[in-house]
Amino acid sequence: MMIIMQNNATPAQVENVIKHIKDAGLAVHLSQGVEATIIGAIGETHALPTEIFETLDGVETVQRITQPYKLASRQFKPDNTSFSVRGINFGGNAVGVIAGPCSVESKAQIIETAHAVKEAGAVALRGGVFKPRTSPYAFQGLGEEGLNYLAQARDATGLPLVVEIMSQVQLDMMRDYVDIFQIGARNMQNFNLLRAIGETQTAVLLKRGLSATIEELLMSAEYVLAGGNTNVILCERGIRTYENSTRNTTDINAVPVLKSHTHLPVFLDPSHSTGNADYVSSIARAAIAAGADGLIVEVHPDPANALSDGKQSLKPERFSQMVKEVGQISQILGRRLATIH
Amino acid sequence: MMIIMQNNATPAQVENVIKHIKDAGLAVHLSQGVEATIIGAIGETHALPTEIFETLDGVETVQRITQPYKLASRQFKPDNTSFSVRGINFGGNAVGVIAGPCSVESKAQIIETAHAVKEAGAVALRGGVFKPRTSPYAFQGLGEEGLNYLAQARDATGLPLVVEIMSQVQLDMMRDYVDIFQIGARNMQNFNLLRAIGETQTAVLLKRGLSATIEELLMSAEYVLAGGNTNVILCERGIRTYENSTRNTTDINAVPVLKSHTHLPVFLDPSHSTGNADYVSSIARAAIAAGADGLIVEVHPDPANALSDGKQSLKPERFSQMVKEVGQISQILGRRLATIH
Amino acid sequence: MMIIMQNNATPAQVENVIKHIKDAGLAVHLSQGVEATIIGAIGETHALPTEIFETLDGVETVQRITQPYKLASRQFKPDNTSFSVRGINFGGNAVGVIAGPCSVESKAQIIETAHAVKEAGAVALRGGVFKPRTSPYAFQGLGEEGLNYLAQARDATGLPLVVEIMSQVQLDMMRDYVDIFQIGARNMQNFNLLRAIGETQTAVLLKRGLSATIEELLMSAEYVLAGGNTNVILCERGIRTYENSTRNTTDINAVPVLKSHTHLPVFLDPSHSTGNADYVSSIARAAIAAGADGLIVEVHPDPANALSDGKQSLKPERFSQMVKEVGQISQILGRRLATIH
Amino acid sequence: MMIIMQNNATPAQVENVIKHIKDAGLAVHLSQGVEATIIGAIGETHALPTEIFETLDGVETVQRITQPYKLASRQFKPDNTSFSVRGINFGGNAVGVIAGPCSVESKAQIIETAHAVKEAGAVALRGGVFKPRTSPYAFQGLGEEGLNYLAQARDATGLPLVVEIMSQVQLDMMRDYVDIFQIGARNMQNFNLLRAIGETQTAVLLKRGLSATIEELLMSAEYVLAGGNTNVILCERGIRTYENSTRNTTDINAVPVLKSHTHLPVFLDPSHSTGNADYVSSIARAAIAAGADGLIVEVHPDPANALSDGKQSLKPERFSQMVKEVGQISQILGRRLATIH
Repeated sequence: MMIIMQNNATPAQVENVIKHIKDAGLAVHLSQGVEATIIGAIGETHALPTEIFETLDGVETVQRITQPYKLASRQFKPDNTSFSVRGINFGGNAVGVIAGPCSVESKAQIIETAHAVKEAGAVALRGGVFKPRTSPYAFQGLGEEGLNYLAQARDATGLPLVVEIMSQVQLDMMRDYVDIFQIGARNMQNFNLLRAIGETQTAVLLKRGLSATIEELLMSAEYVLAGGNTNVILCERGIRTYENSTRNTTDINAVPVLKSHTHLPVFLDPSHSTGNADYVSSIARAAIAAGADGLIVEVHPDPANALSDGKQSLKPERFSQMVKEVGQISQILGRRLATIH
Repeated sequence: MMIIMQNNATPAQVENVIKHIKDAGLAVHLSQGVEATIIGAIGETHALPTEIFETLDGVETVQRITQPYKLASRQFKPDNTSFSVRGINFGGNAVGVIAGPCSVESKAQIIETAHAVKEAGAVALRGGVFKPRTSPYAFQGLGEEGLNYLAQARDATGLPLVVEIMSQVQLDMMRDYVDIFQIGARNMQNFNLLRAIGETQTAVLLKRGLSATIEELLMSAEYVLAGGNTNVILCERGIRTYENSTRNTTDINAVPVLKSHTHLPVFLDPSHSTGNADYVSSIARAAIAAGADGLIVEVHPDPANALSDGKQSLKPERFSQMVKEVGQISQILGRRLATIH
Repeated sequence: MMIIMQNNATPAQVENVIKHIKDAGLAVHLSQGVEATIIGAIGETHALPTEIFETLDGVETVQRITQPYKLASRQFKPDNTSFSVRGINFGGNAVGVIAGPCSVESKAQIIETAHAVKEAGAVALRGGVFKPRTSPYAFQGLGEEGLNYLAQARDATGLPLVVEIMSQVQLDMMRDYVDIFQIGARNMQNFNLLRAIGETQTAVLLKRGLSATIEELLMSAEYVLAGGNTNVILCERGIRTYENSTRNTTDINAVPVLKSHTHLPVFLDPSHSTGNADYVSSIARAAIAAGADGLIVEVHPDPANALSDGKQSLKPERFSQMVKEVGQISQILGRRLATIH
Repeated sequence: MMIIMQNNATPAQVENVIKHIKDAGLAVHLSQGVEATIIGAIGETHALPTEIFETLDGVETVQRITQPYKLASRQFKPDNTSFSVRGINFGGNAVGVIAGPCSVESKAQIIETAHAVKEAGAVALRGGVFKPRTSPYAFQGLGEEGLNYLAQARDATGLPLVVEIMSQVQLDMMRDYVDIFQIGARNMQNFNLLRAIGETQTAVLLKRGLSATIEELLMSAEYVLAGGNTNVILCERGIRTYENSTRNTTDINAVPVLKSHTHLPVFLDPSHSTGNADYVSSIARAAIAAGADGLIVEVHPDPANALSDGKQSLKPERFSQMVKEVGQISQILGRRLATIH
């Protein structure tokens, strides 16, 4: 970290900055030039907020040289992270496809969908039972009843379960059912929840917040990693911009950016990132072509009568075609689709 | 709510939409024109997500005529809401100023600040004890110890306490100390927390999310109101945009927009909405000139050594001058500053 | 277009709206329901701004049913537009790759680059001679001298030339040299320039503005089409958002959205949309996988010493590898790379 | 400017950077620390794009210490700029209000409006004759006929004229009529136009682009100033964000930010920044309270029948009330309204 002093900073102000650096347990490197005095703070600076120095008298600006996260960075761990959930590999060379309905609506619906997505090539089943809905009057999910149905769908197909958790108070109950916790966009900075998950070894699919930067997504992953849980998948799901012809704007740049900055697996959710079933397959192909490690896709046997997100859900046949195309693109990049036995 | 059918929609598709409207307990009004068939859904439509119809075959688009919230709307309750907390009025004709440090750092710091902001004209004391920090390595707040210090500051000055709550698990412990719960930007859509607060009668200052629309802010207020708690203050605190010369972009438009759409009191936080102490007074004046009912401002006796948000904190003297100017602008609009006896 | 009246609109207000519709040469369809009176305006409504009705007394809101553009819409012309420039097809089944330096810097530089990009598979040469630079002190381009060098590069390779035009006063001079005019992001709504180009038959590559909506891009294309020039390529080049880890945010959704709304060819510029050579190939692959009809890519033989945009320029070898991958993805989608003989 | 080298940069790479700095006519200051080698470039660096160094091998990042503009900066000219147009002062202690219709529609309309806004306290008349319209089918303005009507309105009232110019080809014709050229948001980076205006001495009201940063606005002003024309007013008119309850988002922060960075007068346009007549007065008051030097406001005698922007136009009575409130707020800040004799 470099602290750049104002042109007219006094020697006492420079001394004060140096004192603060030493108090933080860091070494100091002083460089006094004609135009500017620059003070380097050397050591474990990722844990140090820049604002500690920005407010000191005489400071012009503070420039971070190393990233504000450590455990999540590729510099810290150059090799790709991969891990196995019920025998399925996430984050290795294989490309994983997670699929299922937005909400679990009934036992029949989830079991039918589970068979359909497995048939089409999915290796995990998603399904929400606690739904974060903008309106207090909208369908809020089936709760534990839905988890029971999901467990039965897993029994029937072998697909591991990906389920959203909304609060740390749900953790104890849910971990008996869930194989991969999804942390949704609205909870990406629910730090209490991140810490609680960090203390488990259950895998997490961490979605990027609606207007979170890539760096903030990695800082939230750092909360989980710092607790000792390294089974983290990052998921781009579209960001909020001024463009309103789609529900969100898929930040496809995030795929190569994340792959260069972190060793964690990177997935993409084309259902939320477009909000429109007509665009999902295009964006799914784009994600894999850009280097993503997997997809999470909303599939519903009868989108027109879905209780939520019907507009962006694929029917099983269309999903099946999508998986085929995604598999072919994977091969061009020297990869293959993950499979379940 | 109006459902506009596609040009080539079949009679069966029209029938199907009508059936869905009736199933939702609403009345139907059918209008078949040359260019389009329009089906009106009449009744308590605020509780109905538009997506229920958007996914039906033959539907072109769905247009909401009435707002998706009810209890928060000025249509439902034309008169301004006001309520009293420890004898201080919020939301009436008087303009209320809440002030204090970002974080409670020590007993001495909070008591000194409490006296200073009261002297300058503040009617409530803010101070964080659980801090939502982007980095897991940053200062996370003093917890219950900080609440004890805050209670002592209240005893010394009579100022009611405004404290951020981050999770519903903190509710029981915190309600013994706190007069007004602050729900921070990151938790504006923490629906579990909103529901839990809605079941109390403790007042709430609900901050707009980093990239929440004004409508979403009102929907989150609706969660609290629907639980029976009507003591809600809305707070604009800046939104995230591409502009990077300030920490956030103060959406000053939100003040007149909210005042026209809702009866709830509207505050503005110029500290977070600018992120820079040099701009806080200008934006505080602008907020009151635009019609805001109050302000929440970060004040610290020694910003350069604050543990968080020092860069945007005012020193007490500067804050005192700001309150004077804000008071003069209030008078032009036929209002006055709230006072504490 | 539907005009939805306020609940309490008077018969006289309804009459006034009807009069305005008839004055615009449109037919009227009146529907008086319990909750709302809706007035349909029927006919060539794409040429009618909604604001004409929004300001009339008693009007609640105006809803456009058909799009505000006509000639650019796929409804008007269902089949894909394609056209030939110096024997190269744009917009057909073949995927076209345009490449070259940001700026023409010297005769040697542009001729060397032209040979290199042709060798790698490009079918047109880009190169700027008038540069829209944020700073008045930055390199502004070689002007007509640069056009001469470009013409020599074309003579040497057969590659048609794609060159940015910044003002209608440059048109007469430039059309002697240029095969495809590029209209840059900053000029997407330079309506005088659009009109001037519309009166020629020279092909245009129209870039999306920095914060233009997809609809606005199509409206700008409509300006050119309305003048009689149908040789228009649309180009996504990234939009401005809050995310700052890349120069712009590639709106990959724009590819399938545009392909569904318009018959015009859709290209993508991964150099500007990422601003970083390390991400260009990933995003180029993603664009083609999403269904784009071509790419425009910055290539420079010595990026480190480029006078502009060096950071985002590919070296010829890396570009060559990119074209190979893009070709393979094209085949999966049943397409092939355009070629030059 | 500081060039921070990568950890593993070689001595040859450091030498190469130093060579580039010297080639640009700047002095070098080298600082070799444990963690990083930093090379300072000292001199007139505002004219130097950072990208020149960013692409050199071994460079980690480049940090600008001084601003990329010079003539527009308050550092270069500490005192506020003010100038007189037909006897009216802009940019001094007085707060100036410009008003008039979006478009000149007829002789009667503009003369009636001119009298009305003068009566209410405006000191200049705005009116568009060339309209930048998103749709090629919308009303494009009266052209020179409109300028004739404006000149008659000036003769009748003494109000100087503020008129938008869209292209440098209009300059010679328009300068016979216009007192202050408005450069609209869409042309803020029309560099040919900026240069052409910079070579005149006619005053300019330069509007911020739809998604321009504050720094980019100042860079565009620098184009005009560099030509020798110092009669420049900057104008915030709202930026494009995801929020859609208003036409644009008023960036009220821009007022104090601009006032601290530049000596040029800063105006605000509450009509475009809100897009809704109901919010204009609130935002006008906010602008002056925040420290703006003036306003430009759309006023129309019959908004419901305006050919453009009727929704955001004030009727004269409402405008008159707005001016009164703005005058009172000016006094609190030790200023007064500009007047015309």
